[in-house]
Amino acid sequence: MNFRKQLTGGLSSLILSAVMSGSLLAAGVAEFNDKGELLLPKNYREWVMVGTQVTPNELNDGKAPFTEIRTVYVDPESYAHWKKTGEFRDGTVTVKELVSVGDRKGPGSGNGYFMGDYIGLEASVKDSQRFANEPGNWAFYIFYVPDTPLVAAAKNLPTAECAACHKENAKTDMVFTQFYPVLRAAKATGESGVVAPK
Amino acid sequence: MNFRKQLTGGLSSLILSAVMSGSLLAAGVAEFNDKGELLLPKNYREWVMVGTQVTPNELNDGKAPFTEIRTVYVDPESYAHWKKTGEFRDGTVTVKELVSVGDRKGPGSGNGYFMGDYIGLEASVKDSQRFANEPGNWAFYIFYVPDTPLVAAAKNLPTAECAACHKENAKTDMVFTQFYPVLRAAKATGESGVVAPK
Repeated sequence: MNFRKQLTGGLSSLILSAVMSGSLLAAGVAEFNDKGELLLPKNYREWVMVGTQVTPNELNDGKAPFTEIRTVYVDPESYAHWKKTGEFRDGTVTVKELVSVGDRKGPGSGNGYFMGDYIGLEASVKDSQRFANEPGNWAFYIFYVPDTPLVAAAKNLPTAECAACHKENAKTDMVFTQFYPVLRAAKATGESGVVAPK
Repeated sequence: MNFRKQLTGGLSSLILSAVMSGSLLAAGVAEFNDKGELLLPKNYREWVMVGTQVTPNELNDGKAPFTEIRTVYVDPESYAHWKKTGEFRDGTVTVKELVSVGDRKGPGSGNGYFMGDYIGLEASVKDSQRFANEPGNWAFYIFYVPDTPLVAAAKNLPTAECAACHKENAKTDMVFTQFYPVLRAAKATGESGVVAPK
């Protein structure tokens, strides 16, 4: 094999590896188009669910500031990194899925809030090179919310829209770990559930 | 190789294969001890979360019939089967984790219910041979609830305690799919999230 063939082969491997990692910058599952927009994450309901909250309209003067139920996921490899190190790695992706309140009474379980239909999808990505100027290197995205259409690719939102509140109020590296028991319990413990007594 | 060696080798393979499948009966992640008790599932917070509900005490005369927040998981292989076929395979395991209400107000997101601490763990297993006489072949287990200690292995609960209500009220094969949007959306669709427009 001559030098040129070796060089071409080496470059192809490098490009293939960059393409397969989904980003030319940080490792991770985030994929961007040539405009730098984040592509809609795939199969995120199979990621690790870290916390779910409900802020129903009826407890917020008929109009909750955010939609009523929200479920937050972290991609599995970044979760594994968090479980081992207690840190969000470069390339971490979180997805926040918005869900309407469905039933308000369960058979046997009483009055409350049960999940209805999907009504929105948001995401955030941590990338120290791509988002070098954002607080904590996190970017935030909306793919759809009620009354706006679903888009296949989303622009990074202005810092003031999401990042500012996350920076001010989220407990760990722009992430609201205070509301996510899965992350609190797993942090640098290597465990993803209660452990059986000996 | 003589006949005796062949027989021993064949039996070893059979036993090894049964041990590796985690059960001598249905395939799946459920593991049982020699008393037939279900062992505490491992890493279930990395399984597929199918739905979360909250029935707070204050909406139930100060004492909710079930603990306040509940998150339900399905093991990943059984979820993949559901996504493909719309059915719960033999060997399906679900875990229900009980969570206290923590904060009641979020920065920006308003009044509501946020996840606090883990306070209980329950599970169910579908196995047509092991539970041939149970409704839908499902067995139900409690590993701990508030005021009872965590156990490493749990007995199948009497049919009247869980199965009877599930049989009467759960929409699909003893499972409350009416409260689990992840399962409703994935049912025989091959999809685990919203799909980007073309």
